[in-house]
Amino acid sequence: MDERIKKQLEFALEIDKEKSIYRQTHIDGYSRCENDAEHAWHMAIMAYLLKDYANEEVDIAKVMIMCLIHDIVEIDAGDTYAYDSEGLATQKEREDRAKERIYSLLPEDQKEEMIALFDEFEACETAESKYAHAMDNLQPLMLNDSNGGKDWILHQVKSSQVYKRQEKTKLGSDKIYDVVDELIKKNIKAGHIIDE
Amino acid sequence: MDERIKKQLEFALEIDKEKSIYRQTHIDGYSRCENDAEHAWHMAIMAYLLKDYANEEVDIAKVMIMCLIHDIVEIDAGDTYAYDSEGLATQKEREDRAKERIYSLLPEDQKEEMIALFDEFEACETAESKYAHAMDNLQPLMLNDSNGGKDWILHQVKSSQVYKRQEKTKLGSDKIYDVVDELIKKNIKAGHIIDE
Repeated sequence: MDERIKKQLEFALEIDKEKSIYRQTHIDGYSRCENDAEHAWHMAIMAYLLKDYANEEVDIAKVMIMCLIHDIVEIDAGDTYAYDSEGLATQKEREDRAKERIYSLLPEDQKEEMIALFDEFEACETAESKYAHAMDNLQPLMLNDSNGGKDWILHQVKSSQVYKRQEKTKLGSDKIYDVVDELIKKNIKAGHIIDE
Repeated sequence: MDERIKKQLEFALEIDKEKSIYRQTHIDGYSRCENDAEHAWHMAIMAYLLKDYANEEVDIAKVMIMCLIHDIVEIDAGDTYAYDSEGLATQKEREDRAKERIYSLLPEDQKEEMIALFDEFEACETAESKYAHAMDNLQPLMLNDSNGGKDWILHQVKSSQVYKRQEKTKLGSDKIYDVVDELIKKNIKAGHIIDE
Protein backbone atom coordinates (compact mmCIF):
# COMPACT_ATOMS: atom_id res chain seq x y z
CA MET A 1 0.00 0.00 0.00
CA ASP A 2 1.59 3.29 -1.02
CA GLU A 3 1.86 6.33 1.23
CA ARG A 4 -0.93 8.28 -0.47
CA ILE A 5 -3.65 5.66 -0.16
CA LYS A 6 -2.44 4.79 3.34
CA LYS A 7 -3.03 8.39 4.41
CA GLN A 8 -6.42 8.47 2.69
CA LEU A 9 -7.54 5.33 4.50
CA GLU A 10 -6.22 6.63 7.81
CA PHE A 11 -8.41 9.69 7.32
CA ALA A 12 -11.36 7.53 6.26
CA LEU A 13 -11.03 5.52 9.46
CA GLU A 14 -10.62 8.62 11.62
CA ILE A 15 -13.88 10.15 10.42
CA ASP A 16 -15.72 7.02 11.57
CA LYS A 17 -15.76 8.86 14.91
CA GLU A 18 -18.35 11.25 13.51
CA LYS A 19 -20.87 8.44 14.03
CA SER A 20 -20.44 8.98 17.77
CA ILE A 21 -20.98 12.75 17.79
CA TYR A 22 -24.59 13.21 18.81
CA ARG A 23 -26.65 16.28 18.06
CA GLN A 24 -29.59 17.74 19.97
CA THR A 25 -32.02 16.81 17.20
CA HIS A 26 -33.88 13.53 17.55
CA ILE A 27 -34.60 11.16 14.70
CA ASP A 28 -38.22 10.80 13.57
CA GLY A 29 -40.14 9.04 16.34
CA TYR A 30 -37.98 10.67 19.05
CA SER A 31 -36.33 7.37 20.06
CA ARG A 32 -32.82 8.86 20.18
CA CYS A 33 -30.70 11.80 19.05
CA GLU A 34 -29.19 11.64 15.61
CA ASN A 35 -25.46 11.79 15.06
CA ASP A 36 -23.44 13.98 12.73
CA ALA A 37 -22.88 11.26 10.12
CA GLU A 38 -26.61 10.60 9.85
CA HIS A 39 -27.38 14.31 9.67
CA ALA A 40 -24.81 14.82 6.90
CA TRP A 41 -26.12 11.82 4.93
CA HIS A 42 -29.67 13.10 5.22
CA MET A 43 -28.92 16.66 4.14
CA ALA A 44 -26.76 15.54 1.18
CA ILE A 45 -29.66 13.52 -0.26
CA MET A 46 -32.05 16.40 0.38
CA ALA A 47 -29.61 18.75 -1.35
CA TYR A 48 -29.68 16.55 -4.42
CA LEU A 49 -33.47 16.23 -4.53
CA LEU A 50 -34.20 19.92 -3.86
CA LYS A 51 -31.43 21.43 -6.00
CA ASP A 52 -33.87 23.12 -8.41
CA TYR A 53 -34.92 25.39 -5.55
CA ALA A 54 -31.44 26.88 -5.00
CA ASN A 55 -31.45 30.64 -5.63
CA GLU A 56 -28.43 30.33 -7.90
CA GLU A 57 -27.32 27.40 -10.03
CA VAL A 58 -25.11 25.08 -7.97
CA ASP A 59 -22.44 22.47 -8.66
CA ILE A 60 -24.27 19.63 -6.93
CA ALA A 61 -21.17 17.45 -6.46
CA LYS A 62 -19.58 20.33 -4.55
CA VAL A 63 -22.73 20.85 -2.47
CA MET A 64 -22.91 17.16 -1.60
CA ILE A 65 -19.28 16.78 -0.52
CA MET A 66 -19.62 20.04 1.44
CA CYS A 67 -22.68 18.66 3.24
CA LEU A 68 -20.96 15.33 3.90
CA ILE A 69 -17.81 16.81 5.46
CA HIS A 70 -19.10 20.01 7.13
CA ASP A 71 -19.29 18.48 10.63
CA ILE A 72 -16.07 16.44 10.63
CA VAL A 73 -14.40 19.06 12.85
CA GLU A 74 -16.92 18.16 15.55
CA ILE A 75 -15.01 14.91 16.13
CA ASP A 76 -12.67 17.05 18.23
CA ALA A 77 -14.72 20.20 18.77
CA GLY A 78 -18.02 18.52 19.71
CA ASP A 79 -21.46 19.53 18.53
CA THR A 80 -22.45 23.10 19.35
CA TYR A 81 -26.21 23.41 19.68
CA ALA A 82 -27.61 26.08 17.40
CA TYR A 83 -29.09 27.96 20.35
CA ASP A 84 -26.20 27.59 22.85
CA SER A 85 -24.73 31.12 22.97
CA GLU A 86 -21.86 30.17 25.32
CA GLY A 87 -20.76 27.30 23.10
CA LEU A 88 -21.10 29.42 20.00
CA ALA A 89 -18.58 31.95 21.42
CA THR A 90 -15.73 29.42 21.44
CA GLN A 91 -16.89 27.35 18.48
CA LYS A 92 -14.61 28.84 15.84
CA GLU A 93 -11.42 28.41 17.86
CA ARG A 94 -12.27 24.80 18.75
CA GLU A 95 -13.17 23.96 15.17
CA ASP A 96 -10.03 25.56 13.72
CA ARG A 97 -7.82 23.35 15.87
CA ALA A 98 -9.86 20.29 14.93
CA LYS A 99 -9.73 21.15 11.24
CA GLU A 100 -5.94 21.32 11.28
CA ARG A 101 -5.47 18.03 13.12
CA ILE A 102 -8.03 15.93 11.27
CA TYR A 103 -7.42 17.11 7.71
CA SER A 104 -3.66 16.80 8.19
CA LEU A 105 -4.16 13.05 8.03
CA LEU A 106 -4.84 13.41 4.29
CA PRO A 107 -2.24 13.93 1.56
CA GLU A 108 -1.38 17.65 1.43
CA ASP A 109 -3.39 18.44 -1.73
CA GLN A 110 -6.53 16.83 -0.35
CA LYS A 111 -6.00 18.45 3.05
CA GLU A 112 -6.02 21.82 1.29
CA GLU A 113 -9.04 20.91 -0.80
CA MET A 114 -11.11 19.74 2.17
CA ILE A 115 -10.17 22.72 4.33
CA ALA A 116 -11.06 25.07 1.48
CA LEU A 117 -14.46 23.35 1.18
CA PHE A 118 -15.07 23.59 4.91
CA ASP A 119 -14.01 27.26 5.00
CA GLU A 120 -16.23 28.00 2.02
CA PHE A 121 -19.16 26.41 3.83
CA GLU A 122 -18.47 28.43 6.96
CA ALA A 123 -18.10 31.73 5.09
CA CYS A 124 -21.49 31.17 3.42
CA GLU A 125 -20.78 33.45 0.47
CA THR A 126 -20.89 31.18 -2.58
CA ALA A 127 -23.99 29.69 -4.20
CA GLU A 128 -23.02 26.17 -3.04
CA SER A 129 -22.34 27.11 0.57
CA LYS A 130 -25.51 29.19 0.88
CA TYR A 131 -27.57 26.32 -0.48
CA ALA A 132 -25.74 23.80 1.78
CA HIS A 133 -26.65 26.00 4.77
CA ALA A 134 -30.29 25.92 3.70
CA MET A 135 -30.09 22.12 3.91
CA ASP A 136 -28.23 22.26 7.24
CA ASN A 137 -31.19 24.24 8.58
CA LEU A 138 -34.05 22.49 6.84
CA GLN A 139 -33.09 18.94 7.80
CA PRO A 140 -33.27 19.33 11.62
CA LEU A 141 -36.29 21.64 11.33
CA MET A 142 -38.11 18.93 9.38
CA LEU A 143 -37.29 16.39 12.12
CA ASN A 144 -38.24 18.80 14.91
CA ASP A 145 -41.54 19.44 13.23
CA SER A 146 -42.21 15.71 12.70
CA ASN A 147 -41.52 15.12 16.39
CA GLY A 148 -44.13 17.63 17.50
CA GLY A 149 -41.51 20.25 18.29
CA LYS A 150 -40.25 18.35 21.35
CA ASP A 151 -36.65 19.55 20.90
CA TRP A 152 -37.76 23.18 20.75
CA ILE A 153 -39.94 22.69 23.84
CA LEU A 154 -37.09 20.97 25.71
CA HIS A 155 -34.69 23.83 25.02
CA GLN A 156 -37.34 26.56 25.36
CA VAL A 157 -36.41 27.95 22.00
CA LYS A 158 -37.76 31.39 21.03
CA SER A 159 -39.07 32.42 17.63
CA SER A 160 -36.34 35.06 17.25
CA GLN A 161 -33.67 32.37 17.68
CA VAL A 162 -35.23 30.12 15.07
CA TYR A 163 -35.66 32.97 12.60
CA LYS A 164 -32.10 34.19 13.22
CA ARG A 165 -30.73 30.80 12.28
CA GLN A 166 -32.94 30.59 9.22
CA GLU A 167 -31.55 33.82 7.73
CA LYS A 168 -28.96 31.72 5.90
CA THR A 169 -31.70 29.49 4.52
CA LYS A 170 -33.10 32.49 2.65
CA LEU A 171 -29.67 33.22 1.16
CA GLY A 172 -29.61 29.71 -0.30
CA SER A 173 -33.20 29.29 -1.35
CA ASP A 174 -36.22 31.57 -1.16
CA LYS A 175 -38.44 28.61 -1.90
CA ILE A 176 -37.03 26.53 0.97
CA TYR A 177 -37.28 29.58 3.24
CA ASP A 178 -41.00 29.84 2.52
CA VAL A 179 -41.45 26.20 3.52
CA VAL A 180 -39.38 26.72 6.65
CA ASP A 181 -41.37 29.84 7.52
CA GLU A 182 -44.61 27.87 7.15
CA LEU A 183 -43.33 25.15 9.49
CA ILE A 184 -42.07 27.67 12.05
CA LYS A 185 -45.37 29.54 12.08
CA LYS A 186 -47.23 26.26 12.55
CA ASN A 187 -45.02 25.39 15.54
CA ILE A 188 -45.31 28.85 17.09
CA LYS A 189 -49.08 28.58 16.81
CA ALA A 190 -48.98 25.13 18.44
CA GLY A 191 -46.88 26.53 21.31
CA HIS A 192 -43.77 24.46 20.45
CA ILE A 193 -41.68 27.57 19.82
CA ILE A 194 -41.97 30.51 22.23
CA ASP A 195 -43.71 33.42 20.51
CA GLU A 196 -42.25 36.88 21.10
CA MET B 1 -46.42 24.43 0.30
CA ASP B 2 -46.99 23.10 -3.23
CA GLU B 3 -47.58 19.45 -4.07
CA ARG B 4 -44.09 18.86 -5.48
CA ILE B 5 -42.10 20.03 -2.46
CA LYS B 6 -44.61 18.38 -0.13
CA LYS B 7 -43.89 15.03 -1.80
CA GLN B 8 -40.15 15.64 -1.70
CA LEU B 9 -40.26 16.39 2.02
CA GLU B 10 -42.46 13.37 2.67
CA PHE B 11 -39.79 11.24 1.01
CA ALA B 12 -37.03 13.02 2.94
CA LEU B 13 -38.80 12.24 6.20
CA GLU B 14 -39.47 8.62 5.20
CA ILE B 15 -35.79 7.89 4.56
CA ASP B 16 -35.01 8.98 8.12
CA LYS B 17 -35.89 5.33 8.91
CA GLU B 18 -32.63 4.25 7.29
CA LYS B 19 -30.93 5.44 10.50
CA SER B 20 -32.59 2.52 12.25
CA ILE B 21 -31.51 -0.20 9.82
CA TYR B 22 -28.49 -1.80 11.41
CA ARG B 23 -25.83 -3.72 9.54
CA GLN B 24 -23.60 -6.54 10.75
CA THR B 25 -20.51 -4.34 10.57
CA HIS B 26 -19.44 -2.59 13.76
CA ILE B 27 -18.13 0.95 13.93
CA ASP B 28 -14.46 1.42 14.79
CA GLY B 29 -13.93 0.40 18.41
CA TYR B 30 -16.65 -2.28 18.16
CA SER B 31 -19.03 -0.45 20.50
CA ARG B 32 -22.07 -1.02 18.27
CA CYS B 33 -23.17 -1.96 14.75
CA GLU B 34 -23.35 0.82 12.21
CA ASN B 35 -26.57 1.67 10.41
CA ASP B 36 -27.24 2.10 6.72
CA ALA B 37 -27.23 5.91 6.82
CA GLU B 38 -23.80 5.99 8.47
CA HIS B 39 -22.46 3.41 6.03
CA ALA B 40 -23.75 5.40 3.05
CA TRP B 41 -22.31 8.67 4.41
CA HIS B 42 -18.94 7.01 4.96
CA MET B 43 -18.69 5.42 1.53
CA ALA B 44 -19.79 8.60 -0.28
CA ILE B 45 -16.92 10.56 1.29
CA MET B 46 -14.50 7.74 0.53
CA ALA B 47 -15.75 7.70 -3.08
CA TYR B 48 -14.93 11.38 -3.39
CA LEU B 49 -11.46 11.08 -1.88
CA LEU B 50 -10.44 7.95 -3.77
CA LYS B 51 -11.98 8.82 -7.16
CA ASP B 52 -8.62 8.96 -8.94
CA TYR B 53 -8.32 5.21 -8.41
CA ALA B 54 -11.49 4.34 -10.35
CA ASN B 55 -10.66 2.16 -13.38
CA GLU B 56 -12.69 4.44 -15.64
CA GLU B 57 -13.40 8.14 -15.29
CA VAL B 58 -16.53 8.65 -13.20
CA ASP B 59 -19.16 11.37 -12.75
CA ILE B 60 -18.54 11.84 -9.04
CA ALA B 61 -21.90 13.50 -8.33
CA LYS B 62 -23.59 10.42 -9.74
CA VAL B 63 -21.36 8.10 -7.71
CA MET B 64 -22.08 10.03 -4.52
CA ILE B 65 -25.86 10.11 -4.87
CA MET B 66 -25.75 6.41 -5.84
CA CYS B 67 -23.79 5.63 -2.67
CA LEU B 68 -26.14 7.75 -0.55
CA ILE B 69 -29.36 6.11 -1.76
CA HIS B 70 -28.27 2.53 -2.51
CA ASP B 71 -29.60 1.10 0.77
CA ILE B 72 -32.89 3.02 1.06
CA VAL B 73 -34.82 -0.10 -0.01
CA GLU B 74 -33.60 -1.75 3.19
CA ILE B 75 -36.07 0.41 5.14
CA ASP B 76 -38.65 -2.20 4.10
CA ALA B 77 -36.46 -5.09 2.96
CA GLY B 78 -34.03 -5.11 5.89
CA ASP B 79 -30.29 -5.51 5.70
CA THR B 80 -29.10 -8.71 4.06
CA TYR B 81 -25.72 -9.75 5.38
CA ALA B 82 -23.19 -10.21 2.61
CA TYR B 83 -22.60 -13.82 3.64
CA ASP B 84 -26.20 -14.86 4.40
CA SER B 85 -27.07 -17.18 1.48
CA GLU B 86 -30.70 -17.72 2.57
CA GLY B 87 -31.36 -14.00 2.83
CA LEU B 88 -29.62 -13.35 -0.46
CA ALA B 89 -32.04 -15.71 -2.25
CA THR B 90 -35.08 -13.51 -1.49
CA GLN B 91 -33.25 -10.17 -1.45
CA LYS B 92 -34.18 -9.02 -4.94
CA GLU B 93 -37.91 -9.64 -4.54
CA ARG B 94 -38.01 -7.87 -1.17
CA GLU B 95 -36.01 -4.94 -2.46
CA ASP B 96 -38.12 -4.55 -5.60
CA ARG B 97 -41.28 -4.17 -3.52
CA ALA B 98 -39.54 -1.70 -1.22
CA LYS B 99 -38.20 0.31 -4.14
CA GLU B 100 -41.67 0.75 -5.59
CA ARG B 101 -43.28 1.82 -2.32
CA ILE B 102 -40.60 4.19 -1.07
CA TYR B 103 -39.68 5.97 -4.31
CA SER B 104 -43.37 6.42 -5.14
CA LEU B 105 -43.43 9.06 -2.42
CA LEU B 106 -41.40 11.32 -4.74
CA PRO B 107 -42.73 13.30 -7.72
CA GLU B 108 -42.91 10.94 -10.73
CA ASP B 109 -39.79 12.28 -12.51
CA GLN B 110 -37.66 11.94 -9.38
CA LYS B 111 -39.10 8.51 -8.63
CA GLU B 112 -37.94 7.40 -12.07
CA GLU B 113 -34.53 9.03 -11.64
CA MET B 114 -33.89 7.44 -8.25
CA ILE B 115 -35.07 3.99 -9.33
CA ALA B 116 -32.85 4.22 -12.42
CA LEU B 117 -29.89 5.10 -10.18
CA PHE B 118 -30.63 2.22 -7.83
CA ASP B 119 -31.07 -0.24 -10.74
CA GLU B 120 -27.84 1.00 -12.29
CA PHE B 121 -26.04 0.37 -9.00
CA GLU B 122 -27.47 -3.13 -8.74
CA ALA B 123 -26.63 -4.05 -12.35
CA CYS B 124 -23.01 -3.01 -11.77
CA GLU B 125 -22.24 -2.41 -15.42
CA THR B 126 -21.40 1.29 -15.68
CA ALA B 127 -18.20 2.99 -14.51
CA GLU B 128 -20.05 4.76 -11.69
CA SER B 129 -21.83 1.68 -10.37
CA LYS B 130 -18.70 -0.47 -10.49
CA TYR B 131 -16.75 2.16 -8.57
CA ALA B 132 -19.64 2.60 -6.08
CA HIS B 133 -19.55 -1.17 -5.45
CA ALA B 134 -15.83 -0.92 -4.75
CA MET B 135 -16.68 1.61 -2.01
CA ASP B 136 -19.56 -0.54 -0.74
CA ASN B 137 -17.02 -3.32 -0.23
CA LEU B 138 -14.02 -1.33 0.94
CA GLN B 139 -15.81 0.61 3.68
CA PRO B 140 -16.95 -2.38 5.82
CA LEU B 141 -13.71 -4.24 5.11
CA MET B 142 -11.76 -1.27 6.46
CA LEU B 143 -13.89 -1.30 9.64
CA ASN B 144 -13.65 -5.07 10.02
CA ASP B 145 -9.90 -4.85 9.71
CA SER B 146 -9.68 -2.00 12.24
CA ASN B 147 -11.73 -4.08 14.68
CA GLY B 148 -9.33 -7.00 14.54
CA GLY B 149 -11.62 -8.96 12.24
CA LYS B 150 -14.18 -9.60 15.01
CA ASP B 151 -17.14 -9.55 12.60
CA TRP B 152 -15.49 -12.15 10.36
CA ILE B 153 -14.67 -14.30 13.39
CA LEU B 154 -18.24 -13.96 14.72
CA HIS B 155 -19.76 -15.11 11.45
CA GLN B 156 -17.01 -17.64 10.69
CA VAL B 157 -16.45 -16.12 7.29
CA LYS B 158 -14.31 -18.04 4.78
CA SER B 159 -11.73 -16.58 2.44
CA SER B 160 -13.70 -17.74 -0.64
CA GLN B 161 -16.73 -15.74 0.56
CA VAL B 162 -14.70 -12.60 1.10
CA TYR B 163 -12.98 -12.90 -2.27
CA LYS B 164 -16.28 -13.65 -4.03
CA ARG B 165 -17.74 -10.40 -2.72
CA GLN B 166 -14.64 -8.45 -3.65
CA GLU B 167 -14.89 -9.45 -7.34
CA LYS B 168 -16.93 -6.29 -7.93
CA THR B 169 -14.26 -4.20 -6.24
CA LYS B 170 -11.85 -5.19 -8.98
CA LEU B 171 -14.34 -4.12 -11.65
CA GLY B 172 -14.43 -0.65 -10.12
CA SER B 173 -10.80 -0.17 -9.17
CA ASP B 174 -7.74 -2.36 -9.57
CA LYS B 175 -5.89 -0.13 -7.15
CA ILE B 176 -8.54 -0.49 -4.43
CA TYR B 177 -8.66 -4.23 -5.08
CA ASP B 178 -4.93 -4.48 -4.37
CA VAL B 179 -5.45 -2.72 -1.04
CA VAL B 180 -8.40 -4.96 -0.22
CA ASP B 181 -6.39 -8.04 -1.15
CA GLU B 182 -3.58 -6.93 1.16
CA LEU B 183 -6.03 -6.49 4.05
CA ILE B 184 -7.72 -9.83 3.40
CA LYS B 185 -4.39 -11.68 3.29
CA LYS B 186 -3.38 -10.00 6.56
CA ASN B 187 -6.61 -11.15 8.20
CA ILE B 188 -6.36 -14.69 6.84
CA LYS B 189 -2.84 -14.89 8.22
CA ALA B 190 -4.05 -13.62 11.59
CA GLY B 191 -6.79 -16.27 11.65
CA HIS B 192 -9.66 -13.75 11.44
CA ILE B 193 -10.88 -15.15 8.12
CA ILE B 194 -11.01 -18.92 7.64
CA ASP B 195 -8.35 -20.00 5.17
CA GLU B 196 -9.35 -22.60 2.59
